[in-house]
Amino acid sequence: MAEQLIGNLLVAQSGGPTAVINSSIAGVIIEAGRHECIEEIYGGLNGVYGILHEELIDIGEENTRAIQRLKHTPGAALGTCRYKINFEKDPEQAQKDTDRLFDIFQAHNIRYFFYVGGNDSQDTTNKVHLEAQKRGYELRAIGVPKTVDNDLTHTDHCPGYGSVIKYNATTVTEVGADVQSMATDEGFCCIIEVMGRAAGWIAAGTVLAKHEPEDPPHIILMPEIPFDQDKFIAKVKENVDHHGCCVVVVGEGSKDTEGKEIGADNSHLDAFGHPVLAGAAERLADIVEPALNLKTRTMKLGYAQRAAAHYASETDVEEAFACGEAAVKAAVDGQSGFMVKLVRESDEPYRWTTGLQPLGDIANLERTIPRDWITEDGWLPNEKFITYARPLIQGELHLPSMNGLPVFARLIKVKLEKKLPPREM
Amino acid sequence: MAEQLIGNLLVAQSGGPTAVINSSIAGVIIEAGRHECIEEIYGGLNGVYGILHEELIDIGEENTRAIQRLKHTPGAALGTCRYKINFEKDPEQAQKDTDRLFDIFQAHNIRYFFYVGGNDSQDTTNKVHLEAQKRGYELRAIGVPKTVDNDLTHTDHCPGYGSVIKYNATTVTEVGADVQSMATDEGFCCIIEVMGRAAGWIAAGTVLAKHEPEDPPHIILMPEIPFDQDKFIAKVKENVDHHGCCVVVVGEGSKDTEGKEIGADNSHLDAFGHPVLAGAAERLADIVEPALNLKTRTMKLGYAQRAAAHYASETDVEEAFACGEAAVKAAVDGQSGFMVKLVRESDEPYRWTTGLQPLGDIANLERTIPRDWITEDGWLPNEKFITYARPLIQGELHLPSMNGLPVFARLIKVKLEKKLPPREM
Repeated sequence: MAEQLIGNLLVAQSGGPTAVINSSIAGVIIEAGRHECIEEIYGGLNGVYGILHEELIDIGEENTRAIQRLKHTPGAALGTCRYKINFEKDPEQAQKDTDRLFDIFQAHNIRYFFYVGGNDSQDTTNKVHLEAQKRGYELRAIGVPKTVDNDLTHTDHCPGYGSVIKYNATTVTEVGADVQSMATDEGFCCIIEVMGRAAGWIAAGTVLAKHEPEDPPHIILMPEIPFDQDKFIAKVKENVDHHGCCVVVVGEGSKDTEGKEIGADNSHLDAFGHPVLAGAAERLADIVEPALNLKTRTMKLGYAQRAAAHYASETDVEEAFACGEAAVKAAVDGQSGFMVKLVRESDEPYRWTTGLQPLGDIANLERTIPRDWITEDGWLPNEKFITYARPLIQGELHLPSMNGLPVFARLIKVKLEKKLPPREM
Repeated sequence: MAEQLIGNLLVAQSGGPTAVINSSIAGVIIEAGRHECIEEIYGGLNGVYGILHEELIDIGEENTRAIQRLKHTPGAALGTCRYKINFEKDPEQAQKDTDRLFDIFQAHNIRYFFYVGGNDSQDTTNKVHLEAQKRGYELRAIGVPKTVDNDLTHTDHCPGYGSVIKYNATTVTEVGADVQSMATDEGFCCIIEVMGRAAGWIAAGTVLAKHEPEDPPHIILMPEIPFDQDKFIAKVKENVDHHGCCVVVVGEGSKDTEGKEIGADNSHLDAFGHPVLAGAAERLADIVEPALNLKTRTMKLGYAQRAAAHYASETDVEEAFACGEAAVKAAVDGQSGFMVKLVRESDEPYRWTTGLQPLGDIANLERTIPRDWITEDGWLPNEKFITYARPLIQGELHLPSMNGLPVFARLIKVKLEKKLPPREM
């Protein structure tokens, strides 16, 4: 039994939202309410960026209905950021940020810190944990996994992933029905661009829409398999000849044989220095249409896919919630410096539990699809992938609606009084 | 009481599918089953294009579950086409087509003809009706309205429209929550491209996502209001300054002050000679990003919006079904040469019924949004539009699902034996 640590809790979110990121927040908040050692529950607005500005809210002022509704509310209810405490690129600012962060922890007696995010956020949580140890500041810091990209290591999968592929597979099923019904003698090609920078998990997930060989998707382009233009054109033609149409799903980060991203625009970089990806579908249409003289249409689902709470996976919502709960339980038990992970116990029936992984094992690593989960010719994921992915999309929510649209949580966000001078930049 | 006409029924679909186009087919089939004068129910595959090739299926072979599931199955279950019997452009081919069509009607004793479609399809139905009269061929031809574009005249609205705006408004709500949660000091612009060529009905419908002034969408660009680049940039800036982000919805057919479509690519024409529209959102991003030095992301929902049966409007499904029923009732009652229309009896509570309009009044006309349904400054639809649109998105379906994805009808499509020689081109 660990020594009891009495103090306040701070939870925050980082990186791109998912349909279930707030379910993890609900898990943290509801579990925290069960432990006397946790005095006040605070939320950090806009992740570490807002925390550095001492933008904290008092979760205790939120009503319980709003907290329940967080389970199925898209976006990051506490706000998010892409800001990173970057010791490699700017050690001076990073040191300032770290000092400031611990000043804020001290000022508000934060003893429990939970950060919900992807790779970069787990790295931040790890740094906070190590720094607390170094300073002798009693803090329990636990990372909660979140990413539609499903690219965190050591966890079976990531909360957010099941929902994005459920929505995308549904979209492919529906668009497939639409496109197939328009297939006349002339043929048709439809190209659907989905998210996924370094890994093809999101694109691959749309294979769940395929029940019969003629069903869409007919081709899935994943970053794991280098894109070969001539083979691609031949494969589209083969599908149009057989099925009258070809539905292609392309991950935004798919790369050509020279490693260059199909849709990369190197003139735009995001806050982490990654090139902004746009237009893989448009680029492919520019290739296919003239080569095959084929009517071609594109779609770019963009943020709609990761925000689609109205068709989220019930399994995903439950797992995200459980990750939040498990983080609090672990911290109360005396743990720090871990990320909660999902552990699969069996495929069928699907059984899972949560576990803990040292944050140092996670940070800044990316997991891609194993090569033997993709067919030999590289055009589609195979049965191994399907066995893995299918349980993750099970179950539908029945969201409350008003005036024909889903109703989501709206937090009132009562801000804590600031105790420190404004942040110096 | 009209003279009883005994014979077979042919129903077919044309133009782009909607989420509820098959609900109208179900309405036709189920209503037809109630009338002894209708002997056999046939479906024409791929609209008039397939009918000219004598591609007919025997609906009597389909099981009743499949017919029930048609109510919520996307795509055109009988297949569709963009083929038009075009007396203006190619009178010789049009005459050949017309002769062929009546040979097929005669060969299969078609006495009831129902064509589900938009402007061009109603024109075709009218020509079939007039030609039957001219030839003294006893036929009752009724058009059933269908178009996500909502641009048919004389009907209060079009089946398919309620579902597309329900899905799009839901997407704007969800993406809005996502984008707002990422809004930091730097600001953010998200541009969502939706369908709508000459009319802004689809774009306008997303205003239903807005409950508070700060809610997305912040700007809706409709083809009815000429696009002024400088004013647009200023309006985006104003929104980013106030709300930290700006969510823009743009109809694909929005035009600049010279009448040129923002996203038009005049090098590509579709089967009706209209320019293929693509990239209005991308074009706007190219304008906004450098002008305001603002992080900008785009989405192009494409066919996903018109195929989104998983979040279709229950009201829309019911109305589409009722239009199919009403078409059969009218024909059995002796009517021909009409389109079924939806008639609004009151806004609140919303009450509606069906009526009939001579096809000659409908064909090839387009209805745009009245200017006084748009705010004076032109950036959003106003309360008049909202009163009109809100009833159309009411009610959710609870679709059957299997393995986490919605289950749709799969027709077995037993083809009729051909009685005529192949079509001569």
